[in-house]
Amino acid sequence: MLSKSQVKLITSLKQKKYRLLHGLFVVEGVKTIQELLQSKLKLYSLYTTESFNIDAKKENLISESELKRISFLKTPNKALAVFRIPDAQPINDSNLILALDELQDPGNLGTIIRLCDWFGIRDLVCSKATVDCYNPKVIQATMGSISRVNISYVDLSDYLKKTKLPIFGAFMDGDSVYKSSLPEKGILVMGNEGNGISHEIKSLTNERISIPRFGNIQATESLNVAMATAILLSEFKRG
Amino acid sequence: MLSKSQVKLITSLKQKKYRLLHGLFVVEGVKTIQELLQSKLKLYSLYTTESFNIDAKKENLISESELKRISFLKTPNKALAVFRIPDAQPINDSNLILALDELQDPGNLGTIIRLCDWFGIRDLVCSKATVDCYNPKVIQATMGSISRVNISYVDLSDYLKKTKLPIFGAFMDGDSVYKSSLPEKGILVMGNEGNGISHEIKSLTNERISIPRFGNIQATESLNVAMATAILLSEFKRG
Repeated sequence: MLSKSQVKLITSLKQKKYRLLHGLFVVEGVKTIQELLQSKLKLYSLYTTESFNIDAKKENLISESELKRISFLKTPNKALAVFRIPDAQPINDSNLILALDELQDPGNLGTIIRLCDWFGIRDLVCSKATVDCYNPKVIQATMGSISRVNISYVDLSDYLKKTKLPIFGAFMDGDSVYKSSLPEKGILVMGNEGNGISHEIKSLTNERISIPRFGNIQATESLNVAMATAILLSEFKRG
Repeated sequence: MLSKSQVKLITSLKQKKYRLLHGLFVVEGVKTIQELLQSKLKLYSLYTTESFNIDAKKENLISESELKRISFLKTPNKALAVFRIPDAQPINDSNLILALDELQDPGNLGTIIRLCDWFGIRDLVCSKATVDCYNPKVIQATMGSISRVNISYVDLSDYLKKTKLPIFGAFMDGDSVYKSSLPEKGILVMGNEGNGISHEIKSLTNERISIPRFGNIQATESLNVAMATAILLSEFKRG
């Protein structure tokens, strides 16, 4: 059974301000929930049509029609969990760090979190204006990787001013990444989907790198930021 | 003004069988339409709320509410064009060719077409069971690249049996692509989102390559096929 206050809490978590207020976020789908139950993330409550055989105090068996009332999806997927937003850990300067400057698209952020997980990037540093990583659309796109990447929202300009690590920025007109010497420790900054890296952040980068275009000169579109991130992380990690 | 038969034709083009029957597909959005008007693709008809100043026989000025009736989008974007599906050109064996084995997701195919455009891949060869590249969701994701890549739907097994080019397949357990010697001419095969490359196609590959995982061993998810394609095309092209 679902209470009115449960419905109110869960549906409020669509909005960033209520996620921050309550320190909670929503995850949907049996597979992703099971993966997160085995991670260090802490479950707050689970609403499911079939029992997961976990702590009965946290598990609420509900009907499919009740699930529809709280789900953020068009086609709810058997279970919805509410997890606690973890505290960000201190950023570890002894690795490659990925930084995002005002990334806006939830799908792109979700994909980038998965890429960080794949390439062993422990720290993802986001400017305050970057889309919230606990946005339901981001969570849907991360497929469990969210529990394995330490995501910090910071004043990016401040953070970059203080670091001693070399700062690489991805630009349309930078030097070919294939010819650049890439260190094991450093910060790679990726910019906003439409505008790239902002003027202020640009001035803080030490090297401007680019993925060369091999296609027809008519191909005016830039690479999507998630694609570019995949290629650049691969370049840093391939050694 | 929109006639009933125009509405019927356009809305039928959501379905592959009617696209094939009429040899037509739909493109939405002013920017993409303008890009395609400058390409070799042939316009069949244009429905727009603001004139493009093109051949008046093909241009239909309509109201926003009329556009809503024919648009495939939740938020129609000022114009909808119907273009003729071009005949596929013969596949050119003197370059790197990308082949797709039963790719299902329209967004992934759209992204991969953009990657082909970026990396100068002229030929994209798709198995018959791969999602149709004139599917509206694919077209939305290609952003004009569709006019610059030659896309052929073939019996992939037959095609691979006949080619003299070396065939590389992307597998979870292949050899590290970073340590593989990659030729300028060859075929790279990417598999289905859930199942990878099918058994039959696997037996036709000469080399099985893989993108090494650097992350935590718990990271069970594979890379999304569009991400993997981005990284592998970059590896082939970086030289």
